Amino acid sequence: MSQDWLTEPCFAIDEASRERALEHQSQLTKPPGSLGTLEALAVRLAGMQHVVTPSVQSVWISVFAGDHGVAAEGVSAFPQVVTGEMIRNFANGGAAISVLARGLGAMLEVVNLGTVNDPGELPNVRRAIIAPQTNNFCERPAMSAMQLELALRAGAASAQAAQDAGAKLFIGGEMGIANTTSAAALACGLLGETPGTLAGAGTGLDAKGIQHKVAVIERALALYPSDDDDALAWLSRVGGFEIAALCGAYISAAQRGIPILVDGFITTAAALAAVRINPSSREWMFFAHRSRERGHARLLSVLEADPLLDLGLRLGEGSGAATAVPLMRLACDLHSRMATFAQAGVSGA
Amino acid sequence: MSQDWLTEPCFAIDEASRERALEHQSQLTKPPGSLGTLEALAVRLAGMQHVVTPSVQSVWISVFAGDHGVAAEGVSAFPQVVTGEMIRNFANGGAAISVLARGLGAMLEVVNLGTVNDPGELPNVRRAIIAPQTNNFCERPAMSAMQLELALRAGAASAQAAQDAGAKLFIGGEMGIANTTSAAALACGLLGETPGTLAGAGTGLDAKGIQHKVAVIERALALYPSDDDDALAWLSRVGGFEIAALCGAYISAAQRGIPILVDGFITTAAALAAVRINPSSREWMFFAHRSRERGHARLLSVLEADPLLDLGLRLGEGSGAATAVPLMRLACDLHSRMATFAQAGVSGA
Repeated sequence: MSQDWLTEPCFAIDEASRERALEHQSQLTKPPGSLGTLEALAVRLAGMQHVVTPSVQSVWISVFAGDHGVAAEGVSAFPQVVTGEMIRNFANGGAAISVLARGLGAMLEVVNLGTVNDPGELPNVRRAIIAPQTNNFCERPAMSAMQLELALRAGAASAQAAQDAGAKLFIGGEMGIANTTSAAALACGLLGETPGTLAGAGTGLDAKGIQHKVAVIERALALYPSDDDDALAWLSRVGGFEIAALCGAYISAAQRGIPILVDGFITTAAALAAVRINPSSREWMFFAHRSRERGHARLLSVLEADPLLDLGLRLGEGSGAATAVPLMRLACDLHSRMATFAQAGVSGA
Repeated sequence: MSQDWLTEPCFAIDEASRERALEHQSQLTKPPGSLGTLEALAVRLAGMQHVVTPSVQSVWISVFAGDHGVAAEGVSAFPQVVTGEMIRNFANGGAAISVLARGLGAMLEVVNLGTVNDPGELPNVRRAIIAPQTNNFCERPAMSAMQLELALRAGAASAQAAQDAGAKLFIGGEMGIANTTSAAALACGLLGETPGTLAGAGTGLDAKGIQHKVAVIERALALYPSDDDDALAWLSRVGGFEIAALCGAYISAAQRGIPILVDGFITTAAALAAVRINPSSREWMFFAHRSRERGHARLLSVLEADPLLDLGLRLGEGSGAATAVPLMRLACDLHSRMATFAQAGVSGA
C-alpha cells in the first residue's frame, strides 16, 4: 500500500464565498462584530462550503476504538476490558456520545480497530480489526508500518462514509484504555518535549499514578532520537490504532472538503499529527473545547487553536465536540436567517 | 402599590433531589467528574426542579425594551429610534433573539415598556408602556417610585406568564439605546465604584466615546451619596424601565421556582440588583456567558458566577443566554439518558 494519499492537497477554501459571507454579516441587524465567535464560525464555514449561507445540520460522528499494549504498565484507572465493554455501550445507546448523537440528530458509527475483549458484531459498529491491541510501546514500536497504514485507511474510510452520507461536519471520537498515555507520548515525540507537562490524569489517576505514567512515557521516548519529528514514525512508535485512524480521518475529511470539529486531548494529538503530515488540513479544523486533561492547552496553543468551550470536560468519545455542535448550528442560523438593516427598516450607527 | 413582594422568599431548592442526582451521576458510564460543568448543571437543576432527572426543554424568553433619556447625552453609537425599530424587528422574526428562539423552539415575548419611536401594537409584543423614555439621569432621577414599581411588576408579570406556560427556564433579554450607560451607572451605584472600569463600548463607541460616557455617568453619580447601596434607590436614580423589569422578573422567577439563565452585561447588572434586593434569588441564576463588554467580568466576579460560554458576544437581547440553552439541554440529556455501569455491564475503576 502507498501512503502518497496522505499528502494530496486538501479541498480548496473558497475565498469569494468567505468574503461575501463577511459582507453579509455586516448588514445584519446588530452592532458589527457583536456576535463575536459566532460570526467568525459562519464566515469560515461559508468559505469551506463554497456558499454564502452555510449549514451544519448534517453531522457525522465516528468513534474509533482500539486497545493499547501499554495498558500492561498500569497507566489507567480503568481495566483494559472496558474498551470492548464501551463499544457495546456505544452500540446500545448508553454512552455519552450515543446520547449526544441522538440529541443532535447526528449520524454515529463506531469503528472497532481491535480490542482484547472483542464485543463481536454489533449494530452500527464497523469492524476494521487490525490486532487485539498495539504492542507495549515501552518495549518496541506500537505497530508495524502495515498496521499504521491499515489504521490510517480505516479513518479515511470513515471520512468517505461521512461524505457519502452528505455530512457537513465531521467529528472523530475515541475509546481505548491507556490512550491518554499514547497521545501524550505522541505529542512528546512530535514536539520534542518531555512528558512532565503533557501527561495527565486521564480517566482519573492520582499524582503518584501520573508520575508512573510519565516514567512509562520516558522509557518509550528513550528508544528513539528526540530530534526526530516524523509524524508517521511517531504514530507507529507510540500511537494507537484509534489515534492513527483519527489522523487518517482528519486528513481525508479535509481532502474531501468536510469541516472537522476536533474534540479533546487525544483527538487534538491526532490532529497535530495530521497537520504535520498534511499542513493544509489545519484550515479544515475547528476546535470544540479546552479539556481539563493536562497537556491539551499546550497542544491547542501549538495548533493556534481557540476552542469554543471550556467546561472542564475530559471524557473523550467525541463528547466535547458533540456538545459544541449546537453553537455552530446557531451560528449558521443567525447568519442565514437574521434580517438586514435594509430588510428590517432599522437605522444604522 | 407595595414593594413587599420583592423580599418574599424564593422557592426552596430540594437538597434531597440534588443529592440523589449527584449519586446518579456517579453511576453513569464515564470517569467520575469527566463531564465537568455539564454534570454540575444537571445536578443544580435537579435541586431546583425537585426531580432526579431535570429538563429544560420548555424555555421562556422575555425581551424587555425601553428608551433612556440619557441617550440625549450622545452615549450610544446608534440613534434612539433604533429601540422602537428593533421591537418591530423582534416581532417580525428578523432579530438575533428571534432567530435563536425559533431555533431552540423557545417561547418569545417582547415587552414594550416605552419608546420614543413607538412601534404600536404588534404580534407577540406586550405593551406595558410606562413613559416614552426615562428622564435623563444626569439631571434628575431616571424614574419616579411609581414608575419603578410599574417596571418591576411588568417583569414579574413575565415570570408569571412563563410559569403559566410551563417554562422550565427563564431568559430575560433587553433592548434600549443607551442602556449600557444605565447598566454601568447602576453597577457603580451598587458597588460604590467609579465608571472607569465598568463603562465600555456598548454598541460600538471608540475610546473617545467611552471617555465621554464615563464623564456622563460621573455627572449622574455626583448627584447622590456614594456610600448608599440601596438597590431600589439606584434603580430609580440611574436605571432603565427594561433593567428594572429584568430585576423584577428575576426575583419573581426565583420565587416561582423557575431557573434563570442570565445573559450579558445589562442583564447581569439587573441580576446584581435582584440579588441585593432578595439575596436568595442568586441560587436560581445560571450565567450564560462572559460578554466582551467592559465591566461584565467585574459583575460576574461580584456575583461569584462562572459563566458557561466566552465567545466575545456583546449583542444583548438575551442572545448569549439563548446560545447557551443547548448546553443545558445536552447536560440534562446526558444525565437522564446515559446508561449506568450496572445497566451497561461496564467495569468500574
